[in-house]
Amino acid sequence: MHKIWNIKNKFEKNRLKPYILIVLHPKLQILIMTRAQLINQIKTKRSFLCVGLDTDINKIPSFLLEFEDPVYEFNKRIIEATSDLCVAYKPNIAFYESRGLKGWESLQKTWRILPKDCFSIADAKRGDIGNTANMYAKAFFDEGESGLGFDSITVAPYMGNDSVEPFLQFRDKWAIVLALTSNQGSMDFQNIKDNEGVQLFERVIQSANQWGSIENLMYVVGATRGEAFKIIRKHAPDHFLLVPGIGAQGGSLDDVCTYGITNDCGLLVNATRSVIYASSGKDFAEKAREEAILLRTEMEKQLIKASII
Amino acid sequence: MHKIWNIKNKFEKNRLKPYILIVLHPKLQILIMTRAQLINQIKTKRSFLCVGLDTDINKIPSFLLEFEDPVYEFNKRIIEATSDLCVAYKPNIAFYESRGLKGWESLQKTWRILPKDCFSIADAKRGDIGNTANMYAKAFFDEGESGLGFDSITVAPYMGNDSVEPFLQFRDKWAIVLALTSNQGSMDFQNIKDNEGVQLFERVIQSANQWGSIENLMYVVGATRGEAFKIIRKHAPDHFLLVPGIGAQGGSLDDVCTYGITNDCGLLVNATRSVIYASSGKDFAEKAREEAILLRTEMEKQLIKASII
Repeated sequence: MHKIWNIKNKFEKNRLKPYILIVLHPKLQILIMTRAQLINQIKTKRSFLCVGLDTDINKIPSFLLEFEDPVYEFNKRIIEATSDLCVAYKPNIAFYESRGLKGWESLQKTWRILPKDCFSIADAKRGDIGNTANMYAKAFFDEGESGLGFDSITVAPYMGNDSVEPFLQFRDKWAIVLALTSNQGSMDFQNIKDNEGVQLFERVIQSANQWGSIENLMYVVGATRGEAFKIIRKHAPDHFLLVPGIGAQGGSLDDVCTYGITNDCGLLVNATRSVIYASSGKDFAEKAREEAILLRTEMEKQLIKASII
Repeated sequence: MHKIWNIKNKFEKNRLKPYILIVLHPKLQILIMTRAQLINQIKTKRSFLCVGLDTDINKIPSFLLEFEDPVYEFNKRIIEATSDLCVAYKPNIAFYESRGLKGWESLQKTWRILPKDCFSIADAKRGDIGNTANMYAKAFFDEGESGLGFDSITVAPYMGNDSVEPFLQFRDKWAIVLALTSNQGSMDFQNIKDNEGVQLFERVIQSANQWGSIENLMYVVGATRGEAFKIIRKHAPDHFLLVPGIGAQGGSLDDVCTYGITNDCGLLVNATRSVIYASSGKDFAEKAREEAILLRTEMEKQLIKASII
């Protein structure tokens, strides 16, 4: 995918027309993931499921420990079992980073096998100023430098504009800004009302709307607070929302869709533990598939209900 | 350092008295860095300088590129040239992460040579919920897992309590919470006033004061906004503050000290570019030392003025 992308960049630098590349590689249209392509994938697969790869070496089935890289082996089998049912994968970077070099190798190998028709999300929640943010963008977007070339990264907004914009400068890449998260502590600051009665997460969306567009910016909105989607959609009627908190965390898909779904779907709903740890036995991949089918079936109903498919 | 620490843990698990360990290793008192030890280092070295290691392979002197690991080689020489003049080192993790596996190796090797009498800061600005935060803590604190065992990590507060507390659960380790940063974008959200007229960064400090103590929690406060230290000290009279923005970013040490210094100093003032990139030639380490001496001299004056030494 990324060799092609590099060739594409070279072509563009030399002012050659992109159609030359399309001749070279007819599948270019899914080598990057635009908004239109993502919507297309959702309609084709009848799903807006994102599978979280929070792969903990202490939680995976023990028989995998005999493999050279158990984490990669686990991810590979989960991906093989679910890739026709979901439109995105989201490795949680902390789980890889905690294992040092071994973890980064597992992450690189996993990134390489992510299906090209799936949107890839580095769940890294980075946030730092200009030059440093640019380095983080390189770490997750620029395969030539870091060995990773995700389509998108989750980003924390606390440091403001110059901590998000460097990610948006990368062509064909996305920043997914934390707005309203699903954890208990989210209420510590995200709901603080300013002197006009506007909550912090609303201010974040209002500001970030100015930094990027619906073509390169999404928001994280936790599923555990379904009613909040009404407010979110007031500020971001067309942006895609990445929604964690379904399944193990207790969020309701129905609530999320009631308030959050748009004409283009506009949702990527993430499930992690309920899918990847559906079984701790040799049948873990099969059970993961069963859970993903259940979620896909629910999502298909929602897509039909909203007249999207 | 960390082998000893592991032995210490084993001793404690077996309920053996710590004095046995002190017999084994009389330097234990500086193998971890408590608040008292940090203050002691500041008084001994007559400095509260932290040197930032934002080591960019594209900015280091070109003759280093012949070495197997140019980034490590650069760091090693900077550390050798400055370790008697500063009390802390702060590698900026993005600069290592952007280079993938090679970068992590340089970081691990650098961490191993950080002087034991210096406080080590992983400038990572991580922030994620419970279990994930715990994984990030392992990544930077737990040498056995990740190959890194920093004394502290910078942490973003947007996700609240459960995104910070896991770092504070690690014995003898510190969390350094972003409060008021030195970048332009800091004004986007950090200064928003709530309906009681309290700014977000003040709320962050008020809340985080409840999560940790002055023994395991610091705040990041940018030097470019000297007058803000008055407000910060109202909420955090005794906490150490990590202060970036001196030197290349234009902050004034005098302003910072006028409003920010305490009886225990309470400041770690960071300089990066002005020190590590003082020269791009073969004399870079020598010039870095000269810059560090200038800063140390200024800091010594401030310490004398405040009757700390």
